[in-house]
Amino acid sequence: MAKVKKAPRPRAEPPKGFRDYFGAEVTERAEMLGRITEVYRRYGFEALESSAVETVEALGKFLPDVDRPNEGVFAWQEADEDGAGDWLALRYDLTAPLARVYAQHRNDLPTPYRRFAMGPVWRNEKPGPGRFRQFYQCDADTVGAPSVAADAEICAMLADVLEDVGIRRGDYLIRVNNRKVLNGVLEAMGLEDDAQKDAVLRTIDKFDKVGKAGVRELLGAGRKDQSGAFIDGVGLMPEQAEPVVAFLTSKGTDSAATLANLRAAVGASDTGAAGVDELSEIADLLASQGYGPERIVIDPSVVRGLGYYTGPVFEAELTFEITDEKGRPRQFGSVAGGGRYDDLVKRFTGQAVPATGVSIGVDRLLAALHATGRVGGQAEGPVVVTVMERARMAEYQAMVAELRRAGIRAEVYLGNPKNFGNQLKYADRRGSPAAVIAGSEEFERGVVQIKDLILGARIAENATLEEWKERPSQVEVPRAELVARVREIVASSDREGS
Amino acid sequence: MAKVKKAPRPRAEPPKGFRDYFGAEVTERAEMLGRITEVYRRYGFEALESSAVETVEALGKFLPDVDRPNEGVFAWQEADEDGAGDWLALRYDLTAPLARVYAQHRNDLPTPYRRFAMGPVWRNEKPGPGRFRQFYQCDADTVGAPSVAADAEICAMLADVLEDVGIRRGDYLIRVNNRKVLNGVLEAMGLEDDAQKDAVLRTIDKFDKVGKAGVRELLGAGRKDQSGAFIDGVGLMPEQAEPVVAFLTSKGTDSAATLANLRAAVGASDTGAAGVDELSEIADLLASQGYGPERIVIDPSVVRGLGYYTGPVFEAELTFEITDEKGRPRQFGSVAGGGRYDDLVKRFTGQAVPATGVSIGVDRLLAALHATGRVGGQAEGPVVVTVMERARMAEYQAMVAELRRAGIRAEVYLGNPKNFGNQLKYADRRGSPAAVIAGSEEFERGVVQIKDLILGARIAENATLEEWKERPSQVEVPRAELVARVREIVASSDREGS
Repeated sequence: MAKVKKAPRPRAEPPKGFRDYFGAEVTERAEMLGRITEVYRRYGFEALESSAVETVEALGKFLPDVDRPNEGVFAWQEADEDGAGDWLALRYDLTAPLARVYAQHRNDLPTPYRRFAMGPVWRNEKPGPGRFRQFYQCDADTVGAPSVAADAEICAMLADVLEDVGIRRGDYLIRVNNRKVLNGVLEAMGLEDDAQKDAVLRTIDKFDKVGKAGVRELLGAGRKDQSGAFIDGVGLMPEQAEPVVAFLTSKGTDSAATLANLRAAVGASDTGAAGVDELSEIADLLASQGYGPERIVIDPSVVRGLGYYTGPVFEAELTFEITDEKGRPRQFGSVAGGGRYDDLVKRFTGQAVPATGVSIGVDRLLAALHATGRVGGQAEGPVVVTVMERARMAEYQAMVAELRRAGIRAEVYLGNPKNFGNQLKYADRRGSPAAVIAGSEEFERGVVQIKDLILGARIAENATLEEWKERPSQVEVPRAELVARVREIVASSDREGS
Repeated sequence: MAKVKKAPRPRAEPPKGFRDYFGAEVTERAEMLGRITEVYRRYGFEALESSAVETVEALGKFLPDVDRPNEGVFAWQEADEDGAGDWLALRYDLTAPLARVYAQHRNDLPTPYRRFAMGPVWRNEKPGPGRFRQFYQCDADTVGAPSVAADAEICAMLADVLEDVGIRRGDYLIRVNNRKVLNGVLEAMGLEDDAQKDAVLRTIDKFDKVGKAGVRELLGAGRKDQSGAFIDGVGLMPEQAEPVVAFLTSKGTDSAATLANLRAAVGASDTGAAGVDELSEIADLLASQGYGPERIVIDPSVVRGLGYYTGPVFEAELTFEITDEKGRPRQFGSVAGGGRYDDLVKRFTGQAVPATGVSIGVDRLLAALHATGRVGGQAEGPVVVTVMERARMAEYQAMVAELRRAGIRAEVYLGNPKNFGNQLKYADRRGSPAAVIAGSEEFERGVVQIKDLILGARIAENATLEEWKERPSQVEVPRAELVARVREIVASSDREGS
């Protein structure tokens, strides 16, 4: 009999590109998503939580024409009775599942169908710093509403979301553009060849990076990039490139000026005129609800996603400055984007159904709230009731029960109580605002000691003697006053922390 | 050139055994989990959200010794540069990831580590009615606390959770047992053979179903089941089976009586005595915090999981009656269970680390809240502002903006407004409490019509003429009073619905 080899110990780590979230990372995100949910619901949107797993067939793009269709997605084949079953995959976004759900239930769902969805998605990509293979998305879409009133509504809702999670008015700007205007510009240029149109679209996508002069070069003969490499151009004549440049730089001092510039840029194109009309209608609808250009603005320089969307396109940017990793100030940048895409369920049903929606970058928005100090920083830990005498455990438990009934996070130290220093180190590691201490002497005298740990830490650092005298970091109070005194300490440390 | 075959349309359905959750199904669960989070945090527990994907190696049990290790889990192999990479799998519970996370971060995490986790898990099992391959779990565990004070704390927390989500005191009972007591009973019986011990454990697991007489038969010669099939017995002598029966039926009129019965059942076994002491200590700790036997009770008839756990075992049952699918009354039954398991991370580190925890059946608890009417039933839909004149869209949008600013869910009808009946059908399908109607005549006179849809539906069914006169289902109000009047209607329909 072969000797059974003892299995080596497994590595205690998640797969490459995956990570865990601890404590405040989880609860802060949940709170933010809860606030977003409230806004979405106020706008009449309904929650949808689709399954994390879809058939590869329903997801599309990743058809099983190769042995393993895991290009970009995590996929596997079901083991059927006969052996080979369906290929399944983890969803890579929340839009593909929406298409499947709407196609499946279109006769039972209200039309228009406003839905929001929040949850993890998975990408089978090479992980990198800050680039994970599982991350959150948070989407809201309106399906079956062809009118731009639906697009305007999404923009207004996005503004409300940003303000309700804690971004101040003035610290964000939602910029709106329209793919139809760009199509009009391409018509005005007389471009007929699809390959050439695509090349122009790709060039426009680089406007953010290379600017006006760069776009001119790339539409013409070509351009040398920073590394010295030469990028071939589209090969248009300088005059021919002008409508594109005019389009990208048509933002005026107000909506009326911008719209006039755009009308000029699209020339005689009907598509272009329709696009400008749509932008004009969006601006009017938003103004009537009180969303002026200080919050939502028509801005033809928004190009991200213009290739993908079919009508209005929008992007939310945070305009306040943060310090980048090299210590230089820069704008925080984009936290959400979306637009209109008009063939959501065609793959399933053969019918084109219009849809428009927005996707919020959950991690980016949470990082922004941290950067502005709107989340984080508070003393979040529980009050720790230390254990001086094992035999008194029931009495310590009664203390935490009282504290909890008063709404205060509290726990008894449940490790080995022998080394008292370890108990205080534990409280420190938990970020506890206070520790409660009671030994036999305290029990006899009917009192407890309360150690103010936040104040204690501050005093250890930099408090003046006056502060120390005025509010010593450890006080003795009658047992009956435990809850009242702890509440005071927790309240004051919350004030200082926030 | 070969003709490209057009791909058939994909089926619009989720994979077998998966489902989607809509609207209130999502938000009600989220609210319940939010309330549970509050209780967990009040007890000092910290959130942990581990990755949904783990290496098969870290999950254990499912080692890649066969071609595809997807027995019970959804698994796939990473495509490395060299071809074959790690086997990855979706987590099948929240305990295996806790073990991996604690082993990985044990030097940085506080000890004891109290953590809670909520989220979907996946099982690659044959789906059936009401049996899905993705479902929610909601766990709380304390790692690194050997004392039964940790177990008592989990029981108290479970009671608080049930009451805070809306189960009334008296409608639930948490029953506590202890594996060590059972081990003592097995010792007292003189059982040495592990196979025989396992057979006794399996028999005990059936106590719920077969009762005292059934257990006696199954421990002895065997038993004919309802279908007439004969189940082989363990083959013990009748006297030898008595300690097990005594153990299972040792619940007395109060804790003291139960504990005395248990002491008799374990005879001279030290392990058994230690187990009884632990139960006694748990009862004392809970009593000192005000959790009496009307909420948490020592009950040796709790056998579910006794084979898996190593110390205290607990189960929460809802004691109110519901009507089963055949119209017969029955107790709602179990909604949560847990216990102590003392080798959580040994696979990773070689060291035994004690742990105790509870898992709440999310779907079961939510169903219970529905059964008691604590969730569901309210008018949840948005107020729908109908569109009589397309050109007035900005004015309709201004109305919903006002309603939303007052905290009222509201939306403009964004479908094709041509057929007004469709707009009211849409409002009906959304469960709207009210529809707002304004055409050119109303705009000229500065008024709006408000249709009370909940009242309208009631009147259509069964209202008296007096009710109709007193509160007609459609009223005309000045435009300036829109918000105030809609608020009244929404408030009254909430009252009636809840």
